[in-house]
Amino acid sequence: DDPLVIAGRVFGSRLITGTGGAANLAVLERALVASGTELTTVAMRRMDAEGGTGVLDLLRRLGIEPLPNTAGCRTAAEAVLTARLAREALATDWVKLEVVADDRTLLPDPVELLDAAEQLVADGFTVLPYTNDDPVLARRLEDVGCAAVMPLGSPIGTGLGIRNPHNIEMIVASAGVPVILDAGIGTASDAAQAMELGCAAVLLATAVTRAQDPERMAAAMRAAVTAGRLARLAGRIPKRFWAQASSPAP
Amino acid sequence: DDPLVIAGRVFGSRLITGTGGAANLAVLERALVASGTELTTVAMRRMDAEGGTGVLDLLRRLGIEPLPNTAGCRTAAEAVLTARLAREALATDWVKLEVVADDRTLLPDPVELLDAAEQLVADGFTVLPYTNDDPVLARRLEDVGCAAVMPLGSPIGTGLGIRNPHNIEMIVASAGVPVILDAGIGTASDAAQAMELGCAAVLLATAVTRAQDPERMAAAMRAAVTAGRLARLAGRIPKRFWAQASSPAP
Amino acid sequence: DDPLVIAGRVFGSRLITGTGGAANLAVLERALVASGTELTTVAMRRMDAEGGTGVLDLLRRLGIEPLPNTAGCRTAAEAVLTARLAREALATDWVKLEVVADDRTLLPDPVELLDAAEQLVADGFTVLPYTNDDPVLARRLEDVGCAAVMPLGSPIGTGLGIRNPHNIEMIVASAGVPVILDAGIGTASDAAQAMELGCAAVLLATAVTRAQDPERMAAAMRAAVTAGRLARLAGRIPKRFWAQASSPAP
Amino acid sequence: DDPLVIAGRVFGSRLITGTGGAANLAVLERALVASGTELTTVAMRRMDAEGGTGVLDLLRRLGIEPLPNTAGCRTAAEAVLTARLAREALATDWVKLEVVADDRTLLPDPVELLDAAEQLVADGFTVLPYTNDDPVLARRLEDVGCAAVMPLGSPIGTGLGIRNPHNIEMIVASAGVPVILDAGIGTASDAAQAMELGCAAVLLATAVTRAQDPERMAAAMRAAVTAGRLARLAGRIPKRFWAQASSPAP
Repeated sequence: DDPLVIAGRVFGSRLITGTGGAANLAVLERALVASGTELTTVAMRRMDAEGGTGVLDLLRRLGIEPLPNTAGCRTAAEAVLTARLAREALATDWVKLEVVADDRTLLPDPVELLDAAEQLVADGFTVLPYTNDDPVLARRLEDVGCAAVMPLGSPIGTGLGIRNPHNIEMIVASAGVPVILDAGIGTASDAAQAMELGCAAVLLATAVTRAQDPERMAAAMRAAVTAGRLARLAGRIPKRFWAQASSPAP
Repeated sequence: DDPLVIAGRVFGSRLITGTGGAANLAVLERALVASGTELTTVAMRRMDAEGGTGVLDLLRRLGIEPLPNTAGCRTAAEAVLTARLAREALATDWVKLEVVADDRTLLPDPVELLDAAEQLVADGFTVLPYTNDDPVLARRLEDVGCAAVMPLGSPIGTGLGIRNPHNIEMIVASAGVPVILDAGIGTASDAAQAMELGCAAVLLATAVTRAQDPERMAAAMRAAVTAGRLARLAGRIPKRFWAQASSPAP
Repeated sequence: DDPLVIAGRVFGSRLITGTGGAANLAVLERALVASGTELTTVAMRRMDAEGGTGVLDLLRRLGIEPLPNTAGCRTAAEAVLTARLAREALATDWVKLEVVADDRTLLPDPVELLDAAEQLVADGFTVLPYTNDDPVLARRLEDVGCAAVMPLGSPIGTGLGIRNPHNIEMIVASAGVPVILDAGIGTASDAAQAMELGCAAVLLATAVTRAQDPERMAAAMRAAVTAGRLARLAGRIPKRFWAQASSPAP
Repeated sequence: DDPLVIAGRVFGSRLITGTGGAANLAVLERALVASGTELTTVAMRRMDAEGGTGVLDLLRRLGIEPLPNTAGCRTAAEAVLTARLAREALATDWVKLEVVADDRTLLPDPVELLDAAEQLVADGFTVLPYTNDDPVLARRLEDVGCAAVMPLGSPIGTGLGIRNPHNIEMIVASAGVPVILDAGIGTASDAAQAMELGCAAVLLATAVTRAQDPERMAAAMRAAVTAGRLARLAGRIPKRFWAQASSPAP
């Protein structure tokens, strides 16, 4: 009764997962099931490289929608090409758009990203861009027609959580499309915090797949996203400097 | 299969609640049910003052164990007396020990608290002391025989969350009894964080009872405690300064 | 013996100030003197609007180099035009480049900013761009020939300090030109922290001009920049989880 | 014109230093001079152990007042004895009172500390107690007659800075004697922050003596304490969520 809606599609789960980093397909399967996810990103270039369709078969079997991504692309041209190949291969016009600038930070290149987003929207794609936490770039991406904006909490794989909650709050305050926290989540409280800040969903991969116990961490993230969403809706108590007794003094 | 054990008693839920701050008994009932709690503190002095046993009746009906507390006591003598009255009234030798120093901070008085704990242990009580986040005082309380230690995250009712995670980590690292985060929780991610730091349980009251929607916040806290506990057990990824791709570069 | 060098020019002070927000010229003068600054930004569009050259006269009298800025510009075209007018008016080819996206955040527009920087460099300007804290955009600005990069700590006038020290550290780690922390400074420790993170200088305006006592706050900022710079050079002690005695136990 | 006054004595510098951790007396001398300190703690038990009076001679030569401390004491009895020996040896009734609970945390034992403080005040000492950041204990120490309270920022030697600024603010809000931040300072911005929170002075040792360049770090700390004090007095700008232009829009 509180579904996530992206571009008119309805999802019961607000946890979107990635498949990267999993030790093997059996581990991945247990983690995906435990996460309750309904939407999972798949790296198109990686699939080409490995020639494997095991992940896609797995998602089909589990009834999870695959969301092709353009991980590894450095330019708008590369990303647009990859998205088109993915559309043919997977028969979906949804794409998680990634255009990163370098290996050390894996941060998005704002100019190439915006360019690619514009081209893909014009080409009929439903574009979900991975972006930095800049409120201006988030708005530009929405303005060119992206179906969601997916700011990072911190760089991919760092596990540093949400380094700048203020920026996420500003993005949420201005966004007319779902804001999905993507990248940087390290542990459950990070995911809960993202939802409390007003994000509509959380996307994560290695926080689960590289945890010591991926299945259990997937269950943790599932519960955390639920917790954070409920807390956001429930309306938290204000913060105070001095104490306040829970019951009147006798 | 991962129960909370305090003084040999087993609890399925790691969320301990308080009753203070609830608008009325109907609201409280819905919140308690949504929280899944099995142990709930009750202010003895408040009950005396109000002459009401409504809360106790409610807990009995819901099958929730009441944990009398000594809220409002300022000295060891007062607290010991209150605990003894509670033992007679409720037929339990468990007590949540509170000895606060003043109204503005509601912080525990370390000297009076330790004194009261020692007396009550000697008198056969199972003592769960509300304490500040000082690792030394926590150890002293354990040394005199307390069954758990319950450090604050921040002062009662402030909703400031865990102001000093480093202290909580030090307390957990040294404790031989369960560490229960008590006071200061404002929202779900605070509760998840407490569990991730290694706390065995979380105790909260007004974060739920004074939320705009107490029932929904209770559900949030229940999920958050589960999330944080699972994340702790699952073994999170390490934090890194630079990024790391979830999948190998193509 | 540790001067700031930008584009070959040498400055004895690492504190760059702005003039906006000052109650009047007398207050501004005392603050500028107390700050020890040698370089001060002046809003060209504001000067047009107010028709006043009082600030420029003041800077000349105090021997402080004026640095025209393009505050209020929303597009590359506007900023380029403003910079050219400033060059004629002030006989300097230095410009602090600002291209903001909206009034609510006053955050830079990354696309327009990069475009303007490229044009101005090509036109022979020494460009000091006010940018967000995105390490990728900072690198792009350096790549197109900017003489420094000036990331924000937080949005202009918020006084929120450095919201994302991790980003500033990443920018410093990759930069080949001076990194100048610009915007968001609220108090002295913010300025010291900027220098400790490796910034070459700090630029601030309203933290001084709108303080209750601007002159005293200017002196505070001067000392803070010195303190942070010295601490960076001195090599701080590492952080530890557990304590370490300063002297051996007896 | 803004001196530090403790127990009626006036100090021009608000930076109190320790001598522990210095590589040798020559390094220590340069650091002390650069710090501008007028008051320096000396470990009495260490002096006994090492039989050296080199530090005391140095302080005398530099015109710096020695403040004997009871580092290494674990009980009130030990601390009282050490203080009395110090009084005879140094002909001063001032003492920095330390009673730590264990080697791993070096945190004060609240019960022993309070006991020792009471005894020493009764014996005519001017007592400056090293305490944790508990506002209640700070008040108790003031109530028994201590001339200052010296809460930690974080455990001795950790360099973690001020882990709980909220507690320091609560202590300052209630204190009638000077609050001196003692322990945990790692770098200059930590010292500035302490002063901004309202502390009257900062005490540190290894942040300087174990820095890579102790003399330069001493100069950094001197400037930082000045910066933080001036900023406190100058009245900082308020924090805002959204931006505010420093000059009116054109």
